[in-house]
Amino acid sequence: MNKIFATIITIGDELLIGQVIDTNSAFIAQELNKIGISVKQRVSIADEEEAIFTALDNAFIHSNIILITGGLGPTSDDITKPTLCKYFGGKMTMHQPTLQHVTYLFEQVFKRPMIERNVQQAMVPDVCTVLKNEVGTAPAMLFKKNNTICIAMPGVPFEMKWIMQHHVLDIIPQQFKTGIILHKTLLTAGIGESFLAELIQDWENKLPTDIKLAYLPKFGMVRLRLTGLGLNKELLAEKMQTEFEKLKTIVQEFLVIDEDLSLEVVVSNLLKQYHQTVAIAESCTGGAIASSITALPGASSVFKGGIVCYSNYAKNKLLHVPNEILNTVGAVSKETVEILATNILKNHNSHYALAVSGIMGPTGATETKPIGLVWIAVVSEKNLITKQFNFKYDRERNIQHTTVNALNMLRKLIIEENKNS
Amino acid sequence: MNKIFATIITIGDELLIGQVIDTNSAFIAQELNKIGISVKQRVSIADEEEAIFTALDNAFIHSNIILITGGLGPTSDDITKPTLCKYFGGKMTMHQPTLQHVTYLFEQVFKRPMIERNVQQAMVPDVCTVLKNEVGTAPAMLFKKNNTICIAMPGVPFEMKWIMQHHVLDIIPQQFKTGIILHKTLLTAGIGESFLAELIQDWENKLPTDIKLAYLPKFGMVRLRLTGLGLNKELLAEKMQTEFEKLKTIVQEFLVIDEDLSLEVVVSNLLKQYHQTVAIAESCTGGAIASSITALPGASSVFKGGIVCYSNYAKNKLLHVPNEILNTVGAVSKETVEILATNILKNHNSHYALAVSGIMGPTGATETKPIGLVWIAVVSEKNLITKQFNFKYDRERNIQHTTVNALNMLRKLIIEENKNS
Repeated sequence: MNKIFATIITIGDELLIGQVIDTNSAFIAQELNKIGISVKQRVSIADEEEAIFTALDNAFIHSNIILITGGLGPTSDDITKPTLCKYFGGKMTMHQPTLQHVTYLFEQVFKRPMIERNVQQAMVPDVCTVLKNEVGTAPAMLFKKNNTICIAMPGVPFEMKWIMQHHVLDIIPQQFKTGIILHKTLLTAGIGESFLAELIQDWENKLPTDIKLAYLPKFGMVRLRLTGLGLNKELLAEKMQTEFEKLKTIVQEFLVIDEDLSLEVVVSNLLKQYHQTVAIAESCTGGAIASSITALPGASSVFKGGIVCYSNYAKNKLLHVPNEILNTVGAVSKETVEILATNILKNHNSHYALAVSGIMGPTGATETKPIGLVWIAVVSEKNLITKQFNFKYDRERNIQHTTVNALNMLRKLIIEENKNS
Repeated sequence: MNKIFATIITIGDELLIGQVIDTNSAFIAQELNKIGISVKQRVSIADEEEAIFTALDNAFIHSNIILITGGLGPTSDDITKPTLCKYFGGKMTMHQPTLQHVTYLFEQVFKRPMIERNVQQAMVPDVCTVLKNEVGTAPAMLFKKNNTICIAMPGVPFEMKWIMQHHVLDIIPQQFKTGIILHKTLLTAGIGESFLAELIQDWENKLPTDIKLAYLPKFGMVRLRLTGLGLNKELLAEKMQTEFEKLKTIVQEFLVIDEDLSLEVVVSNLLKQYHQTVAIAESCTGGAIASSITALPGASSVFKGGIVCYSNYAKNKLLHVPNEILNTVGAVSKETVEILATNILKNHNSHYALAVSGIMGPTGATETKPIGLVWIAVVSEKNLITKQFNFKYDRERNIQHTTVNALNMLRKLIIEENKNS
């Protein structure tokens, strides 16, 4: 099987001044990967003829597929279309079906007068096949040269996605005999990248050559991704499953989930699965834990509520931490987080509660309580688990690491409580 | 003054399978732009020698500066370092200062045993200048070839940012005569990019050629940045100030701040300036507003606390929204947010309070309450201001837009209340 390679070219000055983060490339890369196309490189360039010519020349050297987004709009700085016309040696011509579609959009949908600029959007190179853009005015264009296909799409994300799903992902498998690419990903927490690498190195060294391993660290968690390339889907899947199971056994102690899911999704899914709820009392994270859970659709079925008891006033008034505790052992203490967790569990009538209190920095440290000191308590009707952490980072990362560890403690408790159900 | 061109190369398979969105390139491009460097292209490639060699060969053709991120970790899929060593014709050697730094990190900071892999991080090509990575174990490396400099940085965003700010952005102006670059930035809220463009187009069209305008839209706010390029600092500054004042007058109605500050910093600074505090009741934003404020150092002096009253249960139990209101006009209503704001103001004894309730989607819409419907109330002892919004985005952006508009309403109230002080 020949490996099929793709190059993604995103065009637009906004990408080069960093005004826009290039999410199109990530989406296209994901979709190509699913159908067994390996992305060789992603390039972002300016709306300039020379840059576009150079990028295309380079892409043609090692690509079977070239996907381009951007520069097809109605404004004068959008020069991709005439440039492609010149590159592929054609001339611009009016494409009647597109003109009808654009006219329809203006008359029936936008209900705005159509100006010359919009008419121009129906002009296409006579050397391309037009791919209809149902959801916008700029059509996509397919060019062929030797055995390489080059497709130019608008840069507007939802238009690009529509064209990928309705044209590109159908066309490619018809044109190329692609191999199968499979991914298996797991998430670990509580172990650093290098220690993880040490732990699994014997297994990693014995990996079959058609299976690759990638480490993806984030906020004190590490995702491990296996990527397999083959011809026979069943055989490859079996082979990967075997390796994946070995890996899971080795990292068992640190395994969060054997899917490509974030920790908050894992926790939220567990709660949904058992029809249980959580309430959260946050001091040092200031709402970060609650917002990570509530960022997920349908959060209301698992999240009862939270109290961001940032001041001692709030800790005492809303969650009844006695002032003598706040004035003796203090807000950042085992005692405080245990009372916070226990009381928010009660007053939200939830199955679980979480409480965190710590010193995130850069200010707030005392002789006995350094920056990065964090207490986390997780509680249910039956259990109360409290842990001390000492993070050594800046404020932003201390908040992230506190969030991750709190959610991981909650995850373990949910599993523990439901293990016999 | 010659134009200086840069190429950004991001290395890592995760970028090519679309598992990770490349935010490093956008940050680097923004920072280079600020010092007058034009980014010629951004390239993302795999952790493969051939790909790295090809990308470097192409970059050297038209770049004065090549910035690389990724592939410097301790694991075996990180091959950037040996590959660069080979490309620039050096041999790997132990860099003692880095070894001492890594040892220090493990002994004093991580308090974990250091293993061989970590020692390896101190090995560098003998043809590079090491740039210390204060915040991580992988050092950055500077290579020179002809008149081009090539700097390789770790891919972990906060490490890359630290190295950019502490090394790269100092080195570049020393190496290249970029001329004087000045920036003036202001932040607007409550007006879309295209309307803003419409509003300022006459002024924009008359801008001197050596002053460029950039629109930087984010979460429903638009940052306008003037970048001036010249040789005489005083003259340029004067010229820019004149244009900046004109711009401020035109956008006055939507002006948040005439500095490059985020909205939460502006709000937090206002509260500090007047020694006042805020409490926040969040339903639909689920803690996002509180966490945006508490992400800032010293938040405890302005933020008393928050309640993430996500369930009706919490709205009623903790903030005493009567059940007949929740059962009639409902949780997403003027009445509810006004009671939430008024009661959290009282029970936190703060100067101001904010309350939001809305439908973020994708679920939760009703016949009368579509996705994107949001009520926001902001209150002080003297004033209660309530507004209805109808956002039209996905869950993530609806939460962001709610956060921005809530903070902006708070900002206006703080200014109003203190205008005679």
